[in-house]
Order: sequence, then C-alpha cells, then structure tokens
Amino acid sequence: MSDAVSPLAPKSYPDVPALGGVRFATASAGIKYKGRTDVLLMVLDEGTEVAGVFTKSRCPSAPVDWCRANLALGKARALMVNSGNANAFTGKKGREAVELSADIVAGAIGCRREEIYLASTGVIGEPLPAEKFAGVIDDLAARVSGEPWSEAAKAIMTTDTFPKVATRTVDLGGRKATINGIAKGAGMIAPDMATMLSFIFTDAAISAPVLQAMLSDRVEGSFNAITVDSDTSTSDTVLLFATGKAGGERISAADDPRLAAFKDALGELMRELAHWIVKDGEGARKFVEITVTGAESDASAKRIALSIANSPLVKTAIAGEDANWGRIVMAVGKAGEPADRDSLAIWFGDTRVAVDGERDPDYSEDAASAVMKQDEIPVRVDLGLGAGTATVWTCDLTKEYVAINGDYRS
Amino acid sequence: MSDAVSPLAPKSYPDVPALGGVRFATASAGIKYKGRTDVLLMVLDEGTEVAGVFTKSRCPSAPVDWCRANLALGKARALMVNSGNANAFTGKKGREAVELSADIVAGAIGCRREEIYLASTGVIGEPLPAEKFAGVIDDLAARVSGEPWSEAAKAIMTTDTFPKVATRTVDLGGRKATINGIAKGAGMIAPDMATMLSFIFTDAAISAPVLQAMLSDRVEGSFNAITVDSDTSTSDTVLLFATGKAGGERISAADDPRLAAFKDALGELMRELAHWIVKDGEGARKFVEITVTGAESDASAKRIALSIANSPLVKTAIAGEDANWGRIVMAVGKAGEPADRDSLAIWFGDTRVAVDGERDPDYSEDAASAVMKQDEIPVRVDLGLGAGTATVWTCDLTKEYVAINGDYRS
Repeated sequence: MSDAVSPLAPKSYPDVPALGGVRFATASAGIKYKGRTDVLLMVLDEGTEVAGVFTKSRCPSAPVDWCRANLALGKARALMVNSGNANAFTGKKGREAVELSADIVAGAIGCRREEIYLASTGVIGEPLPAEKFAGVIDDLAARVSGEPWSEAAKAIMTTDTFPKVATRTVDLGGRKATINGIAKGAGMIAPDMATMLSFIFTDAAISAPVLQAMLSDRVEGSFNAITVDSDTSTSDTVLLFATGKAGGERISAADDPRLAAFKDALGELMRELAHWIVKDGEGARKFVEITVTGAESDASAKRIALSIANSPLVKTAIAGEDANWGRIVMAVGKAGEPADRDSLAIWFGDTRVAVDGERDPDYSEDAASAVMKQDEIPVRVDLGLGAGTATVWTCDLTKEYVAINGDYRS
Repeated sequence: MSDAVSPLAPKSYPDVPALGGVRFATASAGIKYKGRTDVLLMVLDEGTEVAGVFTKSRCPSAPVDWCRANLALGKARALMVNSGNANAFTGKKGREAVELSADIVAGAIGCRREEIYLASTGVIGEPLPAEKFAGVIDDLAARVSGEPWSEAAKAIMTTDTFPKVATRTVDLGGRKATINGIAKGAGMIAPDMATMLSFIFTDAAISAPVLQAMLSDRVEGSFNAITVDSDTSTSDTVLLFATGKAGGERISAADDPRLAAFKDALGELMRELAHWIVKDGEGARKFVEITVTGAESDASAKRIALSIANSPLVKTAIAGEDANWGRIVMAVGKAGEPADRDSLAIWFGDTRVAVDGERDPDYSEDAASAVMKQDEIPVRVDLGLGAGTATVWTCDLTKEYVAINGDYRS
C-alpha cells in the first residue's frame, strides 16, 4: 500500500465553517488501523431530520440495514462511523454489533437508539468488536466541537489518500443556510453507490421527506455517475441531515420555490464530493469525464458511458496516455445498447478522432496525444441516434491499483 | 510488453494430425508485426461445409459482417486470417478491404468470393492494407500443406504468449473422425465472445445446419464462459468447418445418434481451447474456476459467476494470493440477481470460508491461503436458493495486465 497522496488531490482545502446543531469528535478505537483515528461521532441537536440513500447490493452490511429501518422515523441525534471494519457479512453477530453500538451512543447522548445512524467501512466478514466503542464514546461525547471538519473526514478514510470535504452557503428564504459535506471512498467505487460514504449536513430547516426527495434526485448525477473499478460495496451510504438551526420556517414541500438555490448548491456539493472520490481512486493518475450524446435515451447514454468508464482496456490505455480510441469503439459496442457503428463520432478533448464509423480524415495523433497527457481528460462519444445524453466520471487503471488491492486486505 | 510466456502455458503440445481436406501455410505480410508470421491461409477441399458464431458487439468488424453474410451459403473453400490489424471501425475502407481480400484469395484458389472466410485481429481503426495480401497469397496457395498445426496457431497470435491447438479423434458411425482446433486471444476477452478467434476443422461429413446447431449449443459452456477483463471485442469469431474427407454418409440431422461421441469431443475441444485463452490472459498468473450453485436459475447463476469473475477487486486479491472472500460477497451482492446474504456459503478449493451469511466457524486462514498459492484456484459459491448452476473461468488481474495494455497499442 502506497503512502503517496493522489496527484489529483486538491491543492488547498476549503475553509469549512462550523454549522449550527452539529458537533463532532474523533478517536482511535484500534478497530484495525494503528496510529490513526478510526471513529467519528457526530452529535446532532434535537429536531434534526434525516434522509438517506444506500447501496443496491443484495448483500448489504448490517449498518445499512440499520439505517434503512430507522429512516422511517426521519429523526437523528447522532452519527457514528468507524473505519477498518465494514461489519458486512457478519450475520447475527453483525446485527448484535449494530445494536450494541447504537445503545452505547444513545446512552452517551441521551436519546432513543432509533435516532442513531451508523456506518462502517473496511474489511468485510470480520466480526466488529463493538464493545471497543464503549471505552471511547463517552469521551467523544464529552469533547465534541464544531470544527475542524477535515478531522471528521480523516476519521472515515480507509485507502483514501486525502480527506474529502466540501461546503456551500446559500440564500434560503432570505436567511443564510450552510451545507457541509464529507466523503470517503477510493476503491470498490461504482454505481449504484460504492464503498462510498458521504455525510451531508445543513443548518436549514427542511423536513425529512423533502430532504429525501432532494437527495434522491441528485444522486444519479453525482455519486451514481462515478466509477473507479465497477465494484459496488455492501456498505454504500449517503445521509443528509438538516438541523434547522439557521432558523426560519421549516420547509415541508419539495417544490417550495425558496429551495431553488439550495437544490443547486446541494447538487454541486454532491458532485464535488463524488469527483474527489474519483480523484482519489486507488492508483489514479488521471481524472476522466465521459460524455455520451446522441443516444436513444438518457438511460441508454449512461449505460454506454459506464461501459466505457468501466472498461479495463480503456482505463489502461488512459494510464498509458495512449489515444487508443479503438477501445472506446469496443466499449460502445459491448454495452448492448442501440448504436450504429457507421454514425459514431469520438473526441478526446476538442480533438475529433473518429467520425462516420472510421478514423477522422483530419486525425492528428499529436493533437490526440497532447490531450492524453493532461491530468483531466474529457472523452465525448456521439452516437448520432437521438437526444439521450449522460456524463460519468472515472479514473485510469494503473499498476498501483493492482498493488493496492493485491497486496492489502482492505 | 513482456516477452515472457505465461506460467500457465502447456508443458507440452499435443501431436495434432493432418486432417483430410485441410491444407495451410503462413507468411509475413508485414501488416504490423515485424519478424513474425501474420497471415494464415487455410485451403479447404471442395464440399466443405461451415458454421459460425460471432461477437454480439454493436460495432462489429468488417470481416465479421462478411462472414455472417456468407454463412447463409454454408460452403467454404478457404479461410484467411491476419493478425496486427482488426479491420474494425474502418468504415467503407474496411468493407473494400474485405472484398479485395476475398477476391485475392478466391483468385488464387479458384472459387467464388462467398466461399472465402476472413478474420482479422489487432489494432482497431487503422485501415487494413489488403493490397499487401496480393503479394503473398499466390505464394501461400502454392505451398499449403497439412502440417504443422502449431504454425497455423502462431500466425494468428497478437499478445498471446503461446499458440493454442487442440485435437480429438472420435468414432463417427464406425469411422474415425478427427477434430482439430486453433485459437487466439489474450486480452479483450469476455462473453459473449472476445478478441477471440477460434477455427475448428473436422474431416467428418456433416451438413452446415447440423454444424451450426452443435457449435451454438456448445459456445455457452466454453468460449462464452470465459472472461479475462470483461471487455468484448469487435472481431470475435468461431468457425467450424467440416470437409467430409473421413468418408461415410453425410449426417444431416442434429439428433443423429451417431453424433454422440462427436458432440462430446467437440464440446471438450472447445472448452480446452477456451481454457488456454484464459491461461494466456494478459498478465495471468492464476487460472480461476468459479462455480455458482443454488441460484434461482442457470442464467442467474451465470450472471453471478461472471460478476465475480469480472470484479477487479476479486481478481487483484487472487493475484495477491489473498483469501479475501469478502470481495466474493461484494461481487455476489452487486450482480443484481436474487441472493440471500444469510444463506450464502463460499469455498476456496475444498475449504469452506463462509456459511450462513458469516465467516465459517471453523475458518482456517492457513487452509484458505494454501489454496490461493495454487496455480489453479477453484472458487465455489452456493446461494441456497434453488437448483441453478454455472461455471465460468477467469484469471487474476496483475500489474503485467496494466503494463501490457497501458504501454502498447494492441
């Protein structure tokens, strides 16, 4: 496992402000990692509402089952996340570990266990020693504070090489509202969802059903439009909490016009976090944006875009800075979606490399190769069939990906 | 690009006998590779019947279009294969190159162009300079002979590290019939079909429709049950030719009881060639057999088996000799097929590592790790739901795969 930080890491981190109603602390519980924080406790003021989306895996982790069940209540008082052990495929022991964890946190905070949200990330199949939390949660609850958010992001990292935080401030009905988000994820990243955890908090006063609608609408174009390796985790979780501490009337209709700026900002923040996950893709050296236009439908465009984004041959070519557009053709062809070879066109950046089912008559290897040397590579495919479009993001496939995943049980 | 031969290569090659009605020769036409043969001409005696299966890619190569169209006639007099250029995504030029190639061969042999079968493998998108064949085909046609088959297999290699040949001899209605096959393929290998070419020849007298039925029935359990990297080529082709030179009555009913041994031998030969392709998977160090039992249907079992076989995280763990069965759980979960986490059981070899949705109570890391050190690794997953079963074969994902595909435009 390499200690190097991804070359696509941010050059600087945003100044994430404290957010009313949210306090947190981190600790080292020694679940798996030594010498780094592995437990995050986020305490939420009374009145906090919550929404969530989860992995579509048929083998979800015990914490995913737990959170899903509690969402019906829509109320949250705390979030506890541990890294190093996913508490997935742990059977009855996993359910017991979740209940014990929730009881420990609920006891420390003074609330119902159904108001505790839990997430775990790390190795699958190892029983989670939840009793270890008993020793640290009271201490954590006693020293929570509103900053710094980067510490919260660090405590949930596994093979991540940098913490992922984002923030937005918007006008909401004449008041200032803040949205802060953290995320983790580096491998096992694919739609729908991934070993990806993201927790988003706002001080706006918004009802749980509206939070849920806004979150669900924006997942398709953010967290569900990224892929590192086509593998989908048992633990994927995105939660959106609203504390209401910004004041003002609680918004309880999804089409409330006051939400316009908030919705845009939420979508941007989710996309930003999703992009950071790809930029920290295991072994990643290149960030690749794949846009498909001219498909028969948006859904068809997305399936073709993902076929390209998940192709090992496309991803290794990009790692080699090779403008090997033939592999793009291959990946379009294998997607199983409507496509007409003889109307296909392909661009790397602004350089069209193929048109009308063959190499562009003005093809320039030099121009295409220059694009491939960039850190961020836009690829566009036009199918020439209809109006369907989609954009997805991925990274290249490097020897480091193999080293990280072959030499280390993550 | 490594020059090393796969560690999974055969220790010795079979003695492939000459086969009545089939003669061949190879040459270096200089299409792309220097210093190795890149054109194979196989001349078939009059009366030869033919069947074929092809890539399901929506962007098939020009030779695939050509062969598909000619199969209606069911007669073959020659097969020409070139390596180094796939003549795929070459538009009108590609169709012209195919016609020119067929005319050159038909002229040299003295037959109709519709009796010429063509296959090309190599780089996509480069126009194929078919005029180069004019200089070599007459010479090839003049010096065809019945041996050695390994030379035929060598001429169709691209990134393959060893030639792939197989042979069987069977009783067919009291007469001896021989089946010889060659194949190529190392990367871009996935169902349905792959950059995989296989050409199978028999001296039995069997009608084209019966050949087609036998071939189609056996593709699902052989060439369509292997995957190296989930990528599917534009050029996949399997052709089965029958010269009739073994004599005897021509068989024209697919359920003719005299075909029993022939069908078994054909299925075995196809599976053997398919396995050699996986064992020559780019960068492969391990051959992995994945069996799924207890699924709701055979089709569901196969989709789950392929989800495991195509998972980069499973394949890198196998490369690292890591008995990381949590990644098997992940791959089952993401397949989108019916699965019940709490009834799942997983074996590496004979070592059960998980049962009833959690780690086996008798789990032995040592026993599991011992299996992972083998060259050939059997993985079995029982879903506990129904009677559906499937077996697929794959290889591990190594740094060499990335090097081969990132450093070289294949």
